[in-house]
Amino acid sequence: MSNAQHSTFSNVSILHHPLFPINYEVLIKVLRITNSILTISVIMAKLLVLSLSLCFLLFGSCFAFRDQQPQQNECQFERLNALEPDNRVESEGGLIETWNPTNRQFRCAGFALSRATLQRNSLRRPFYSNAPQEIFIQQGNGYFGMVFPGCPETFEEPRESEQGEGRRFRDSHQKVNRFREGDIIAVPTGVAFWMYNDQETPVIAISLTDMSSHQNQLDQMPRRFYLAGNHEQEFLLYQKQQVRGKEEQESEGSNIFSGFKRDFLEDALNVNRHIVDRLQGRNEDEEKGAIVKVKGGLSIISPPERQPRHQSRSRQDEERWQPRPHKSRREEEDDEKHSRHHDQGGSRWKQDNGLEETVCSAKYRENIGSSSSPDIYNPQAGRIKTVTSLDLPILRWIKLSAEHGSLHKNAIFVPHYNLNANSAIYALRGRAWLQVVNCNGNTVFDGELEAGRVLIVPQNFAVAAKALSDKFQYVSFKTNDRAAIARLAGSSSTLNGMPLDVLAATFNLERNDARQLKNNNPFKFLVPPRESERRAVA
Amino acid sequence: MSNAQHSTFSNVSILHHPLFPINYEVLIKVLRITNSILTISVIMAKLLVLSLSLCFLLFGSCFAFRDQQPQQNECQFERLNALEPDNRVESEGGLIETWNPTNRQFRCAGFALSRATLQRNSLRRPFYSNAPQEIFIQQGNGYFGMVFPGCPETFEEPRESEQGEGRRFRDSHQKVNRFREGDIIAVPTGVAFWMYNDQETPVIAISLTDMSSHQNQLDQMPRRFYLAGNHEQEFLLYQKQQVRGKEEQESEGSNIFSGFKRDFLEDALNVNRHIVDRLQGRNEDEEKGAIVKVKGGLSIISPPERQPRHQSRSRQDEERWQPRPHKSRREEEDDEKHSRHHDQGGSRWKQDNGLEETVCSAKYRENIGSSSSPDIYNPQAGRIKTVTSLDLPILRWIKLSAEHGSLHKNAIFVPHYNLNANSAIYALRGRAWLQVVNCNGNTVFDGELEAGRVLIVPQNFAVAAKALSDKFQYVSFKTNDRAAIARLAGSSSTLNGMPLDVLAATFNLERNDARQLKNNNPFKFLVPPRESERRAVA
Amino acid sequence: MSNAQHSTFSNVSILHHPLFPINYEVLIKVLRITNSILTISVIMAKLLVLSLSLCFLLFGSCFAFRDQQPQQNECQFERLNALEPDNRVESEGGLIETWNPTNRQFRCAGFALSRATLQRNSLRRPFYSNAPQEIFIQQGNGYFGMVFPGCPETFEEPRESEQGEGRRFRDSHQKVNRFREGDIIAVPTGVAFWMYNDQETPVIAISLTDMSSHQNQLDQMPRRFYLAGNHEQEFLLYQKQQVRGKEEQESEGSNIFSGFKRDFLEDALNVNRHIVDRLQGRNEDEEKGAIVKVKGGLSIISPPERQPRHQSRSRQDEERWQPRPHKSRREEEDDEKHSRHHDQGGSRWKQDNGLEETVCSAKYRENIGSSSSPDIYNPQAGRIKTVTSLDLPILRWIKLSAEHGSLHKNAIFVPHYNLNANSAIYALRGRAWLQVVNCNGNTVFDGELEAGRVLIVPQNFAVAAKALSDKFQYVSFKTNDRAAIARLAGSSSTLNGMPLDVLAATFNLERNDARQLKNNNPFKFLVPPRESERRAVA
Repeated sequence: MSNAQHSTFSNVSILHHPLFPINYEVLIKVLRITNSILTISVIMAKLLVLSLSLCFLLFGSCFAFRDQQPQQNECQFERLNALEPDNRVESEGGLIETWNPTNRQFRCAGFALSRATLQRNSLRRPFYSNAPQEIFIQQGNGYFGMVFPGCPETFEEPRESEQGEGRRFRDSHQKVNRFREGDIIAVPTGVAFWMYNDQETPVIAISLTDMSSHQNQLDQMPRRFYLAGNHEQEFLLYQKQQVRGKEEQESEGSNIFSGFKRDFLEDALNVNRHIVDRLQGRNEDEEKGAIVKVKGGLSIISPPERQPRHQSRSRQDEERWQPRPHKSRREEEDDEKHSRHHDQGGSRWKQDNGLEETVCSAKYRENIGSSSSPDIYNPQAGRIKTVTSLDLPILRWIKLSAEHGSLHKNAIFVPHYNLNANSAIYALRGRAWLQVVNCNGNTVFDGELEAGRVLIVPQNFAVAAKALSDKFQYVSFKTNDRAAIARLAGSSSTLNGMPLDVLAATFNLERNDARQLKNNNPFKFLVPPRESERRAVA
Repeated sequence: MSNAQHSTFSNVSILHHPLFPINYEVLIKVLRITNSILTISVIMAKLLVLSLSLCFLLFGSCFAFRDQQPQQNECQFERLNALEPDNRVESEGGLIETWNPTNRQFRCAGFALSRATLQRNSLRRPFYSNAPQEIFIQQGNGYFGMVFPGCPETFEEPRESEQGEGRRFRDSHQKVNRFREGDIIAVPTGVAFWMYNDQETPVIAISLTDMSSHQNQLDQMPRRFYLAGNHEQEFLLYQKQQVRGKEEQESEGSNIFSGFKRDFLEDALNVNRHIVDRLQGRNEDEEKGAIVKVKGGLSIISPPERQPRHQSRSRQDEERWQPRPHKSRREEEDDEKHSRHHDQGGSRWKQDNGLEETVCSAKYRENIGSSSSPDIYNPQAGRIKTVTSLDLPILRWIKLSAEHGSLHKNAIFVPHYNLNANSAIYALRGRAWLQVVNCNGNTVFDGELEAGRVLIVPQNFAVAAKALSDKFQYVSFKTNDRAAIARLAGSSSTLNGMPLDVLAATFNLERNDARQLKNNNPFKFLVPPRESERRAVA
Repeated sequence: MSNAQHSTFSNVSILHHPLFPINYEVLIKVLRITNSILTISVIMAKLLVLSLSLCFLLFGSCFAFRDQQPQQNECQFERLNALEPDNRVESEGGLIETWNPTNRQFRCAGFALSRATLQRNSLRRPFYSNAPQEIFIQQGNGYFGMVFPGCPETFEEPRESEQGEGRRFRDSHQKVNRFREGDIIAVPTGVAFWMYNDQETPVIAISLTDMSSHQNQLDQMPRRFYLAGNHEQEFLLYQKQQVRGKEEQESEGSNIFSGFKRDFLEDALNVNRHIVDRLQGRNEDEEKGAIVKVKGGLSIISPPERQPRHQSRSRQDEERWQPRPHKSRREEEDDEKHSRHHDQGGSRWKQDNGLEETVCSAKYRENIGSSSSPDIYNPQAGRIKTVTSLDLPILRWIKLSAEHGSLHKNAIFVPHYNLNANSAIYALRGRAWLQVVNCNGNTVFDGELEAGRVLIVPQNFAVAAKALSDKFQYVSFKTNDRAAIARLAGSSSTLNGMPLDVLAATFNLERNDARQLKNNNPFKFLVPPRESERRAVA
C-alpha cells in the first residue's frame, strides 16, 4: 500500500472527526505577513477574545440543553433519599459499585452513577459508553488515556533494545494523562477510556454518565462497551431486572470482540487464533473483571521519567512530566498552571501542524479538589470551587459541570436552587444536614448526608446545608455546562434584587423588617457558624 | 394594492425565513473600498453586523429545537377544540385561570397556558418556573421585575429621610420595567418574576409556559415555585388529579421558604422569628393567594417620576422614565424606539463596565399590540405584527415567538401552515371562523373561535381564518423563536413557487386553470372581503 | 467580611451567569488603533475564515443533537433483522414502498424509511413532512423542486406565444434542480418537495425521514402532507394499526386542501369551483395516487435546453444546464465540480442582491455514487464516499449524513462502531455478510444483507462486513451530520491509540503479541481479500 494512499486515509479520518476545530493557524499565518507587527499581535489577542466570547455565548447555558426529559410525573417527589450504591462487582484489581439507574430519582435526573476503586498497579480496562461521563477522583493518583478516532499517535516511546526483535518496533500511541485527587475528567460519548493506578493509595473514582444527553441516541439504560474481558458490564444487572418477565437471556457477559466470528477476526486483524482468543476473552475467568492487576506494573506509559533532566528548562512539556512524588502540592499547582497556559496559549491555538491536533490535544481534566484555588472562600465558613465550560471548554460538549465544597462545622450553605440543572450531591467526607423543598413548599428531604452517599436535587428545588462534622466535603455534579444557582438568602440574593416595597408587600412585612431581610446577612454563599458555636468547636 | 405595499409584504416573508443567512458579500465589498481611517469605523459597524448575522444564523430556527417530543400518537387528532380555562383560583388582588395541561392538545403542543387578572394596586408575588414563559399583556399597564442571579442591583432609590433609622439605608434593586397593553414579556427558566398593576384598568396577562423546552430538566408538569404566600401553585390541581390513585397528599400549599426549618432560616437569614414566619406564610390566609392587594399602592418602584425634567434632554435613559400617563401613545411609541436603539447600540454592545451588565440590561419585552407598527398591513383587510428573536434577541434563548393579528369583518387569513412550530391562537376580541386540516386531509376544526378561547394548531396542520365580527383580534404563541409559515394561497405562496406545468400536472388542471391558480389572488397574507361584503359592512 | 472577599464572590456570580456576552467593545477599541489599510483587508478576509471555521465548529457534531430518545429499553436488542419494505402503494406513475416505522428497530433508531419508484414521465406530487428527509437516488435521473416560503421565484420561463391569451403571462417559479443516480438530496422539515422522471430508466429513491429530529414537534409517527390527490399518505396505514382498538376512522385519504370548505377556497384563492374541485382531489380516482403520469411529459421545467449554446461560455450557470444525456460521466463530474465551486464561492457568499437569495440558492444535493470521487479507496478492496455537513452545509440543519460504499468480493470492512449516530445500511447491489455486536458482547446480527434490504445498526454497536458477491454496494444513512466511526482493527484504530503495555495488560497478551495486534493489519477501513481468495475471484 502506497504512502499516498495512507495519507488519503488519514485525511478522511480527520474530516470525520467529531470535533473539527477552528483553523486559527491560517488566520495567524496571514496576519504574520502584515506589516504593523505590534498592532497585529494586539488584534490577534482580541480576535481570540472575540472568538472565545462568541464561543462562550453560543455554547453558554442557553444551549445547555439535554435531550431527554423524564416521563410525565417522574419528578413529582414527596420524598427524596440519600442513596448508597446498591450493587458491587468485584474485580481482580478493584471493584465497581453502582447505583440503580432505574430508581425514580435517577430517572428524573436522567443520569447514572457508579464508583470504581482501583488497587495499586491495577488497570481499568478500556471501555466506551453511549453517553458522556464526568468522573471525579475522590482519592489517589494515576494515569488515564482516551482514544479519539482520527487523532494521531503523538506519544512516541523510545526504541526498545532489550528485546532482539523489538529493535525494529517503536511504539507510539495517543496522549496519556496523569490524574490526581480532586480532578474532574470529561469523557465524551463513544470514546474509549482507560485508567491506571500506579500508587500505593487506592484510587476511588465517582462517575456520572449522563443518559439524557443529546449525544445518547439509544434509550435511557447506561451501557458500557468493554473492549476486553469476559465479564458483565456493570449496569447490565438492572437491565436484566427490567426485562425479567421475558425469557432468561443467555448473555454470558463479554466484550465487543467476542461477538464476532473467530475466523473473521483472524482475517480482519491479520493475527493468529491465539491472539483472537485473548481478544475475545475466551478461557478468561469472569472474576478477573473490569479492573485487572498488572504484574510488575506498567512502566512504559510514563515517558518523561526516562528523559534527561538537564535539557533546556524552557521546554515546559518536559517539566510537566517530571516525577511528581518528589514535588510538594504547591509545586504541582504551579506546574499545572504552566501546563494549562501551555494548553491554551500553545497547543490549542498556536500549533503549526494542521487542524487535527487542536482537538486531539484539548484538555480533558481540571482540578477542583481541596488543594486547588477556591472560587468562593471564607476562612470561618469554608470554600467552594466550580468547574464549568469556561474553565474546561470540553464541558461545552458534554453539557456537564461540577462543584466541590468544603464546609466547617456548623457553617451553612444558604438556601438556594439550581436555575438550569439537576444536581447530584455526593458526600466525600464528614456529614451535613440537608433540607430540600419542592414547588409545593413541602420538605422532600430533611436529614443527614454522610460520606459515600448521594442526594439528587432536581432543578429548581430549594436546598440548604449545614455541616455537622468538622470538615464536610462534597462534590456536586450538575447537568448543565454553565450551571447557575440562585440564592434565597444573604447579600446579593434573589430577595435583594427586588425593591424594598415589593419585598414588603410580597411577605406582608413592615418596611423595616423588609430592610432587615435584605441586609442582616452580609454573607453570600457560606455563612460561618455563630460565635457561640465557633467557640464550642474550638 | 400598491407596489409599496407588496414589497412590505415580501420583506416580512424574508424576515420570517428559517435560514436567515450571513451576507458576507456586503462585508467583503465594503472592505474592498477601504482606504482610509474613516472607512474603518464602517468596518467596525459591519463587524457587528457580521457577528449579529452569525448570531442570528446560529441561533436561528436551525437551532430552534425543543427538547421533548410528544408520546407516540399524542398528536393524531381527528378533532380539535377551542378551549376555555377550566379552573380559576381567586386571590385577594385578582385571579389566575388555567387550562388543563394534561389535555391531549396541550400534551401534543408541549406547553401550558394560564391567564392572570390583576386589580388596581395588586402585586403578583414573585415566583419562578421550571420552563421559560412568554407573557402577552391583553389589557392594562404596570410594572414588572425579574431577578437574575449574579446581576447587580442597578436601581438606586433616593435616600429616605422620613424615618429616623432609615437614614443610613438606601435601597437598591435590579431593574424594574414598565409594561403596557400589547407587550410580549419573555421570562427565562428559573428567574423570579413579579408584576404590579398601578392603574385603574385591570391587567390581563396570558402566559404560555413551554414545558417542552430544553431548559426544563424536570417532567412535563408545569410548576410555579412561589417565594411567598400560603396557597397552592396554580397547576398543582392537575398534578393531584393525575396521582389521585395514590394516598391523599397533604400538600398544604405553601412557598419554597415554608419547607425549611424555622430555626435554620433564622440563622441563614439572620432575622428574627417574626420575619421568618412571614416568609413561610404562617398564619397567612390561604385566600390571600398569589396576587395581593397593596394598601396605598407601591410608590418606590417608579424612580423616574422623581427625577427633575429640566436636566439635559440628550440623556435618553431619563427620557425613558418620564411619567407616562401624560404622554400620548404616539409619544410612547417614539420613546420606545429610542430606548430600543439605546438598548442595542448602547447598553448591549458599547458599554465599558464589564461583562455582566450586558445581559443584565438586556431587553425582555416588545410591543406587538394594535398600537405598534404592523409588519403586514392592508387597510381593507387588517394587520399582523410578529415578534421573533430578530426583534427581541432574548427569544433566541427561550425559543418562543408570537404574532398579533387584527382582521376586519369577512377578511380572510389565507390557508397556511406553521413550518417549524406548534401554535396557540388566543382570541382577544371578536370572533372568527377557523378551519384546521390534518395530514389525512380531514377537517379537525371547523368552527368559531371567540374572545377568551384558545385553539392549538399543531405543526404543519393547515389552517385558515375568516373574521366574523367587526374587529377580530388574536395573539398566536409559537414554539420556535423563528417561527415561519408557508402560505397555500395568494401571491408568492407555495403554489406560486412551482412551475406552471408541475402545478397543472399535480392538480390535473389545464395550463390556463393553473395560471389562474397562480395569479388570481393578488394578496399575500390577508384577503379583504369581497366588494359586496364590504358594502354590507359599511 | 473584607471587601476583597466580596468582590471574589461577585466575580464568581458573573462567571456562572447564563448569558455570558460578547465583548465587542474591546475588539472595536483595538481596531480603532489600526491604521495600515493593507492589513485591514487581510484581516477582513481572515475574519471570514474565522467565522466560517467557527460555524463549522459550532454546527459540528457537538451540536448534532437529536430531540427524542427512544423509550426505556427500546434499544435492548438481542436480535436485529435485515428488513424489506412491508407495504406497497401502487400509483398511476409508480409505487411507494414503506418499512413499518413502529417496528422496534425503527423506533429505537427514531427514523422512518420508504422507497419510491417513478416510471418515465411521472411526477411525484408535492408534499411536505413534519421531519427532515434525506433521499438517496438509487437509480435514474430527473428533476426535483422544493418551495421555500419567502424565497423569490427566480426561474423565469420565456414568454409563451402559442396561446393567444397566454401572451400576457410569463411563468416564474423557484429553482428547479436536476438529480442523478448516486445523489443525496436534503429536504428540510415542512418544505414542499416534488420530483419528476424525464428519462427511460425508472427512478428509485430511498428516503429516510428523521422523526427524532428536533425540528419535528409532533409525535413519532411519520406524516406526509400532500398538496394534491385523493389517496392515503403512505404511512397512514401504520397509524391506523396503532389505534385499531378505537372506532374505525373514516379518513378518506385526501390532501390538505380537501379539508377546507369549497366556498371558502373559492374566496381565498379567487378561482372558480371547477379549479377548487381539482385542488381538493374530488372525483379523482384514489388509484391515481402520489405519483402521476404526465401525458407528453413536462417540458417547461428545463429552461436551459432552450437557451442558445453560442452564448458566452464563461457563464457557468448555463453550462450547468446543457442537456446532460450527451455528456459522459467524466464530463458531468467536471460540471458538478464547477457548479459546486460556483455555489460556494459564488451564489452563497458573493451575491449582491440581499440576504434572501443566499439561503434560497443553497445547495441541497451532493453526489456520493460510484461515479463520484471516493474518500477512501483501495483498488483491491473497494471505495467509500461520505457526505457530511462539511460537504453539504444544509446537512447541518437537518442533522443527517450518509455514506456510500462499494466492496469487492471477499473484501472486509473492519469491525467498527458509530461514535455518535444510529445508522441504516441499505444494500444497493450484491450481498454481504454482516456481523453486529451489542454491549453485552452478544451477536445481534450474523447474516447476509442482500440488495433491497436494510439493516439498522444502533449507535456504538460494533459492526463488520465482508462482501459475498462481486460488487457489494450500499448506502448508509446516519443520524448525525458529522457522523464519525471508530475502527476496532487495522492501522490507526482504537487499539493503536493505546500504549503497547496497556494493550498487553488489557488483553492479557505478551508484548510481542500486542505488537502484532497493533501492526499486522496495515489497512485502515477496507481489507482486500487474501491472495488466495483474490485469485479465486479472478
